[in-house]
Amino acid sequence: MNQLQKLLESIVTRVNVNLREFTDVGPHIRNLVDRKRLSGFYAFYGLTQHHPLYFKFVESCLSGTYFLGKCDTSRSIIYKSDIRGDELKRRGDVVTVGGLKVRLLSDEFISIRDSYLVKTLVHNHSHDLENLEKFAIRNTVALHWSNIHGSPMEGCFLGPFATVDLTSAHNCVFGSYSYTQVGDISNTYVKPGRVWIKSEGEFEFNYQFDEDVLHQYVAYETGKPPKGILMDYVEDRKADFLPIYSFVQEHPVPVPPGASLSPYAVVKGQTRVDRNVLVAQRAYLEEAWLGEGSNAQENCYIVHSSLEAEDVTAHGGKIIHAHLGRHIFVGFNAFLHGTPENPLQVGENSIIMPHTIIDADEPLEIPAETLVWGYIRTAADLEQNSISLKELEDITDGLEMGAMRFSGNGKIFANVFRDRIRHILEENGAFYTPTGNNAGHAQKNQEMAFNIMQPYPSGDLEGLYPALEINPTSVDYFAPIED
Amino acid sequence: MNQLQKLLESIVTRVNVNLREFTDVGPHIRNLVDRKRLSGFYAFYGLTQHHPLYFKFVESCLSGTYFLGKCDTSRSIIYKSDIRGDELKRRGDVVTVGGLKVRLLSDEFISIRDSYLVKTLVHNHSHDLENLEKFAIRNTVALHWSNIHGSPMEGCFLGPFATVDLTSAHNCVFGSYSYTQVGDISNTYVKPGRVWIKSEGEFEFNYQFDEDVLHQYVAYETGKPPKGILMDYVEDRKADFLPIYSFVQEHPVPVPPGASLSPYAVVKGQTRVDRNVLVAQRAYLEEAWLGEGSNAQENCYIVHSSLEAEDVTAHGGKIIHAHLGRHIFVGFNAFLHGTPENPLQVGENSIIMPHTIIDADEPLEIPAETLVWGYIRTAADLEQNSISLKELEDITDGLEMGAMRFSGNGKIFANVFRDRIRHILEENGAFYTPTGNNAGHAQKNQEMAFNIMQPYPSGDLEGLYPALEINPTSVDYFAPIED
Repeated sequence: MNQLQKLLESIVTRVNVNLREFTDVGPHIRNLVDRKRLSGFYAFYGLTQHHPLYFKFVESCLSGTYFLGKCDTSRSIIYKSDIRGDELKRRGDVVTVGGLKVRLLSDEFISIRDSYLVKTLVHNHSHDLENLEKFAIRNTVALHWSNIHGSPMEGCFLGPFATVDLTSAHNCVFGSYSYTQVGDISNTYVKPGRVWIKSEGEFEFNYQFDEDVLHQYVAYETGKPPKGILMDYVEDRKADFLPIYSFVQEHPVPVPPGASLSPYAVVKGQTRVDRNVLVAQRAYLEEAWLGEGSNAQENCYIVHSSLEAEDVTAHGGKIIHAHLGRHIFVGFNAFLHGTPENPLQVGENSIIMPHTIIDADEPLEIPAETLVWGYIRTAADLEQNSISLKELEDITDGLEMGAMRFSGNGKIFANVFRDRIRHILEENGAFYTPTGNNAGHAQKNQEMAFNIMQPYPSGDLEGLYPALEINPTSVDYFAPIED
Repeated sequence: MNQLQKLLESIVTRVNVNLREFTDVGPHIRNLVDRKRLSGFYAFYGLTQHHPLYFKFVESCLSGTYFLGKCDTSRSIIYKSDIRGDELKRRGDVVTVGGLKVRLLSDEFISIRDSYLVKTLVHNHSHDLENLEKFAIRNTVALHWSNIHGSPMEGCFLGPFATVDLTSAHNCVFGSYSYTQVGDISNTYVKPGRVWIKSEGEFEFNYQFDEDVLHQYVAYETGKPPKGILMDYVEDRKADFLPIYSFVQEHPVPVPPGASLSPYAVVKGQTRVDRNVLVAQRAYLEEAWLGEGSNAQENCYIVHSSLEAEDVTAHGGKIIHAHLGRHIFVGFNAFLHGTPENPLQVGENSIIMPHTIIDADEPLEIPAETLVWGYIRTAADLEQNSISLKELEDITDGLEMGAMRFSGNGKIFANVFRDRIRHILEENGAFYTPTGNNAGHAQKNQEMAFNIMQPYPSGDLEGLYPALEINPTSVDYFAPIED
């Protein structure tokens, strides 16, 4: 047993202590990614003048993983994941807790320990107000294409394509393709295909995918890579990413002022990027037009589609043969699958909720100002899985439509989404003007350099990375001597 | 003035304190490499299971520089250099000082501080017996294609193509294309084009290049990149290196057992590499045959040439249209320049001394077992600039031939070279057999991975690298728990 295998066993033991009432994670991860792959890819780290710099890892395997911002990693296996700390809170920021104002005494950092993450996205600052300076992921296993978004985790298991969003979670199991945004949760099993948004005392949204439908799109059997249509879509395009990690590529398309296009994104065909657009690493663009202020986050696929302006594609969103008007939100791991014969049109200001599957059997047109969820193949499905935002705002005492149940205040729910879209656009720099004070990721990522780190290539330590710590260079030392 | 410029001024001040009797290094280096270049290239670090790992740098610019082994760098600018710590002494090694035996209490490491190195090679363990564990380069400036070989430096200036070999140097200026191997030296000016080897009480070798000849091959004007035939040769081939730093290349030619070919070497044309061959990073091979156990060190050019077996090409050696028999040594920065019409043949066991220029105006044949030095264009020159090793061994009281003066014992001199060649071949793994215990660099470098480090890409810190420390990963942590 080499050291990497021992590390894996150590992680299994730690996570199992937390999850002993639910599951044994050993069979899930013991043979999931073979040793050759775990030691076969470099890890990389973004460097800019805009992001606070601190990175430390010890006793870990980081194969193919990207880091940005302050991160501390120990005793973990993180495979082809994105650990994006570019929205961490800073020293001096003030956070309001109930009526109390608390000031951060140091920069927030991401801390990952005793965890195993596969193709997982970690992003955003934590909303755990009791741990302001540390966004911790501990004793946690997260499988393919899961999203840990502003959600500190302790003792959790995320199935493939699961998203936990703005939720502190303790000893929970999140099933495949489940979406959870509930603020705080512990000792809970979230069923596969459940979409669950709750704000205590304000509203609760629930949607449950039919088991057979879910099985077609995301099927997971313990210990094996997930299968299904979503996985096939991604796997079919995997080879396009290979050259990106081997070559330093020049911008394959013009990048106008205010925009940034990661050199670790795939760009194919007649693709166009307008001003203030952000294209993150591991995004995939083919015959895509991204209009002013739009963005494509990690693990997005935008193919044969146009985004008019200020459109947000959240992490893992896929948009195929679709035409989006202005100011549209496509949530995490949503799958908008039009075809040349059955294209998809989305009207302005609409919200496609996270984990929505639209797999068009006929041409579909989503009206402006619509909230969309669930599973849609036809116009009739669309009818049953959407509501105009105006109607939603009038709801004060609940709504049931098909597999969706909503309770509470519709206006608050709608506004939470609207505020969030606005916030995302701001953070991404969609409204940037050269004279204004509103630069975001699109601008701050423009001059990014990448450090590349390799594991031990052979021997007992094969696949583990040497301990590495990186700090800002101090500057005052070179101040000129006054005469 | 940004921080990188302030660092440069800080280095100038430090070096000038040491060299105040000789020169002001400011005009030499202030505009030598422009800022864009100093911030334009990544630095890289070799990782294997065979080399002790420790790397730390603070407040430095490392543009384009390669590191291997334990290195500590602070307040320095190191441009496109090679800092190779793969022959550093290890903890527990015993060194004999006079009659005393001293044991190393920690691994030796290379420490570079307040220094400015351009395209400089640093290699080998130090022979400074008073500082066994630290190979220090302090307050030193070294220009293009200089070699610092097993030579601790304090307050020194090395001109272009200068080599200091197995010599502790304090407050010295080494002129362009000078070669110095004298054990210990301080407050000395070594003239450009002087080849100087001295072992106190045993022998002294001196050769002085004619000033006009030297000017043709290596011309240096304060503050400008060097010129001349050697520089032209290198510059003409510079573009071939560009793709190597941009792409991950597969082996361009088959690499047989026991051999290693750095992915950072250029390989062109019908080139062949035999067993136990070592090709270092920044070597250049074109239509080259490297026979069993031969090696091409950093900054070597082997072009339209064959090396039969166990031939050593020391750092910066250039071999063009030449055919070498077995077991030949070509010293540092030697320039063996045959042409298709005027090829060069070298017989077995011959020694081409460091900084020898052979620029053939007619076909030249160097007999076996010959020592060669100086400047040679014709058979008549060769006659005057060589001696058979057998004759050399009989010399007990000096010899003058042209611009060469030798005093002392010829046999000791010849044996010093022979021992060294043997040592180099051993260290490089030329005699490796899979069942034996004689692996060297050729074998140990086979599974090498490279970490890549970038400077701040913009802002006040542009060109400086964030502070970085890398340590071995500890292993005992993951030992399984006994039942």
